[in-house]
Amino acid sequence: MHREIERKFLVRKLPADLTSYPHNEISQGYLVSRDDGLQVRLRQAGQTYSLTFKRGKGKVREEREVELSPGQFDTLWPATEGKRLVKTRYEIPHGHLVVEIDVYHEKHEGLVVAEVEFDDEEGAKNFHPPDWLGDDVSGDPRYSNQLLAS
Amino acid sequence: MHREIERKFLVRKLPADLTSYPHNEISQGYLVSRDDGLQVRLRQAGQTYSLTFKRGKGKVREEREVELSPGQFDTLWPATEGKRLVKTRYEIPHGHLVVEIDVYHEKHEGLVVAEVEFDDEEGAKNFHPPDWLGDDVSGDPRYSNQLLAS
Repeated sequence: MHREIERKFLVRKLPADLTSYPHNEISQGYLVSRDDGLQVRLRQAGQTYSLTFKRGKGKVREEREVELSPGQFDTLWPATEGKRLVKTRYEIPHGHLVVEIDVYHEKHEGLVVAEVEFDDEEGAKNFHPPDWLGDDVSGDPRYSNQLLAS
Repeated sequence: MHREIERKFLVRKLPADLTSYPHNEISQGYLVSRDDGLQVRLRQAGQTYSLTFKRGKGKVREEREVELSPGQFDTLWPATEGKRLVKTRYEIPHGHLVVEIDVYHEKHEGLVVAEVEFDDEEGAKNFHPPDWLGDDVSGDPRYSNQLLAS
């Protein structure tokens, strides 16, 4: 089991040469997405397919993820209809951390949100965001993928 | 997508030589199980592992199933803790149909329920159960695997 410990920020100013950083188009859809944080998510990132189970709310959540074969993905994906989103994820190194910038497409075209994942809660608490990041919006439902996909 | 069309019965009288029919011990657990019929189920039947997404209520439900590798199963299975059941499933041929008899173990030890799956709703409606089957309990929550697992 993985404990997902992350914070989410608005982006004040996109890094110069954004597209020079590693990036991937991500399509994700939800088989299940509940208000209490229980979710089963399917994701295609480049040629990688996965299913992720998450449970819990807030900064620390239980997370279990398995890679899927394209065939497994194709069988389950149609059930996510109406609960999908598409975004480009850029990975910006920041010290020993990575700031992931998600630029949303389609109905949320242009929305930009950054996420930072931490090894422990101490790291999450002590993190000093670089000045190009804006407000901390961790837990703000307006920026929850679950809601953006509905 | 598979439409699952089935009826569920009590068993008045077990077939003689029950263990001479094909049978398998089945362990199943729920990642998600909601009152409205939405569920994500993990199952081990013999050496076969699967994940099944079901949606809807009543005799006809949407069902999508993928086989899992043992590794995928092992990653997800711990999240079903507290929502599991174990049963032995016997497959009894009945004309061109199969009556599946589930004999439950552990906290429901001794509970016996039979299920018949049909190709279409007409077949389900016109089915005449053999006299060794008892009351039709389709949709009776007391015999729902989802509730038996909780």
